[in-house]
Amino acid sequence: MEHQIISKQDLIDARERIKNQIKRTPIFTSSSINSILGCNLFFKCENFQKVGAFKFRGASNAVLSLEEKELKRGVATHSSGNHAAALALAAKMKNVPAYIVMPRTAPEIKKKAVEGYGAKIIFCEPTLKAREESLNKIIEETHAKFIHPYDNYNVIAGQSTAAQEIFDELHDLDFIITPVGGGGLLSGTSLSTKYFSPKTKVIGAEPKNADDAFRSFNEKKICPSINPQTICDGLLTQLSEKTFEIISENVSEIITAKEESIIEAMKLIWERMKIIVEPSSAVTLAIILENKEKFSQKNIALILSGGNVDLTKLPFK
Amino acid sequence: MEHQIISKQDLIDARERIKNQIKRTPIFTSSSINSILGCNLFFKCENFQKVGAFKFRGASNAVLSLEEKELKRGVATHSSGNHAAALALAAKMKNVPAYIVMPRTAPEIKKKAVEGYGAKIIFCEPTLKAREESLNKIIEETHAKFIHPYDNYNVIAGQSTAAQEIFDELHDLDFIITPVGGGGLLSGTSLSTKYFSPKTKVIGAEPKNADDAFRSFNEKKICPSINPQTICDGLLTQLSEKTFEIISENVSEIITAKEESIIEAMKLIWERMKIIVEPSSAVTLAIILENKEKFSQKNIALILSGGNVDLTKLPFK
Repeated sequence: MEHQIISKQDLIDARERIKNQIKRTPIFTSSSINSILGCNLFFKCENFQKVGAFKFRGASNAVLSLEEKELKRGVATHSSGNHAAALALAAKMKNVPAYIVMPRTAPEIKKKAVEGYGAKIIFCEPTLKAREESLNKIIEETHAKFIHPYDNYNVIAGQSTAAQEIFDELHDLDFIITPVGGGGLLSGTSLSTKYFSPKTKVIGAEPKNADDAFRSFNEKKICPSINPQTICDGLLTQLSEKTFEIISENVSEIITAKEESIIEAMKLIWERMKIIVEPSSAVTLAIILENKEKFSQKNIALILSGGNVDLTKLPFK
Repeated sequence: MEHQIISKQDLIDARERIKNQIKRTPIFTSSSINSILGCNLFFKCENFQKVGAFKFRGASNAVLSLEEKELKRGVATHSSGNHAAALALAAKMKNVPAYIVMPRTAPEIKKKAVEGYGAKIIFCEPTLKAREESLNKIIEETHAKFIHPYDNYNVIAGQSTAAQEIFDELHDLDFIITPVGGGGLLSGTSLSTKYFSPKTKVIGAEPKNADDAFRSFNEKKICPSINPQTICDGLLTQLSEKTFEIISENVSEIITAKEESIIEAMKLIWERMKIIVEPSSAVTLAIILENKEKFSQKNIALILSGGNVDLTKLPFK
């Protein structure tokens, strides 16, 4: 599938490929949030997905798409976030090795999560150069397959399955909103929407303080993310060639939200829905908080991307 | 139904009476918690119930059981917790007044919740005497019907419906565990179990630091709760005549848990299941943490009683 446009059949195949391995997550509604905001919201709870994030969909599809010979050699990536845990678990479920390059400075809790899924961690200095060198070295040694967190068509097709599940259940959506960091989830969602719910508009939600996707989308070229300062630790990455191209073609707009709105939205979800979502998920609701008029009376699906937070470091006052 | 034993038909009637008003809450499982503890746990998520707690079931059944003439005059209670909010909402849904006696010292957030459901709050000094006097006075003035939080057969029958829903879905349960404070949920659950799943053993879970139900159960008389010091703010009350009698007859045992175990259990639920439960709910899992051998390999339902917590005052370190 690499180096070609992703077809409708590719998305259907991805869904079939991973369906016995992933959780079909529920869609929650909240009458109190609906009445506060004056619209009908449908929250796709990927915080309940395995490893606590949608990333397990893409990692699963990437691993399960490998041919037997490739698969045996295992998979590798560099990440300290949800993709690392997702790839580790997907590899473990096929009983093949996963090699994860991580900066020495990564939080202990993240190292433990990845180790807990049986992956081999290769520590490196916390620079892009060291990370890439370490990754190249381990791939040379093991011939493991590099699975990029989002610049990979199989990963993108895997992420599309969350929206496919939404469109099974909901048929009159005006909007579907996902967070955007590297763009894997937004790309997959936009393709699912194009093929399965073409009247629905796709919106990417991004922190104002890390607005490289917003700028890239509007300036029609990939803009780097420079020193982003946001509570959304899952959205620090920037678009890649593959995600930029898909998003440019299939997304209606990217809307940014202020940090205060993101925290307010997160608190609203925690308090009213009694579920734990990470700040990166709450940015989807935050853009509605900041644009009530635009979304008034609309039917809107939001993908709550994950629920991995450090409970000892919460932003609530 | 007052002053008679609650029959199987009473429970079925209660369920029918409230079914369009309450949420049928989901039952969650967690493969990681199961593998940590070596048993099969089924979590009934009453934290997702309206007003964020099972209390809405009992309050709904009590309100909907009133005759038209009584109903019009409204309902009254004294409480600063989940029962107050539950009764206020149940009254609002029937468009009748609710009078809630609350100590002046109740947290602002709880006052607002009850006001938000349209109830009339009567403030009193924070003593039992002042509370009872205020309640009697408002009942005299309005002829509203007093709905006790748990010493009321209609409330107990309402609380039984959570377990009834569990037994629809799960047929081989070795144990069902609920928290015990005043005993309404435990009473209702024990009656549902007797009628619908008689092979399942019913266990009450209680904080060691507020073990009046444990002592009452074992000493076969109601023991007062004296200066309880626990994080479980929903479990400070003591058994009443009605709940003591039902629990004595239908519950297998009451097990207590230490404060550290309750916090550990709460953290496990938050981190692994990505849902928000209050400490009073976590005591059910805490007794399993403290008694792994006893529960090893068993099928166990736990009722997560509620999810109302102050997010700025969490016990995680």
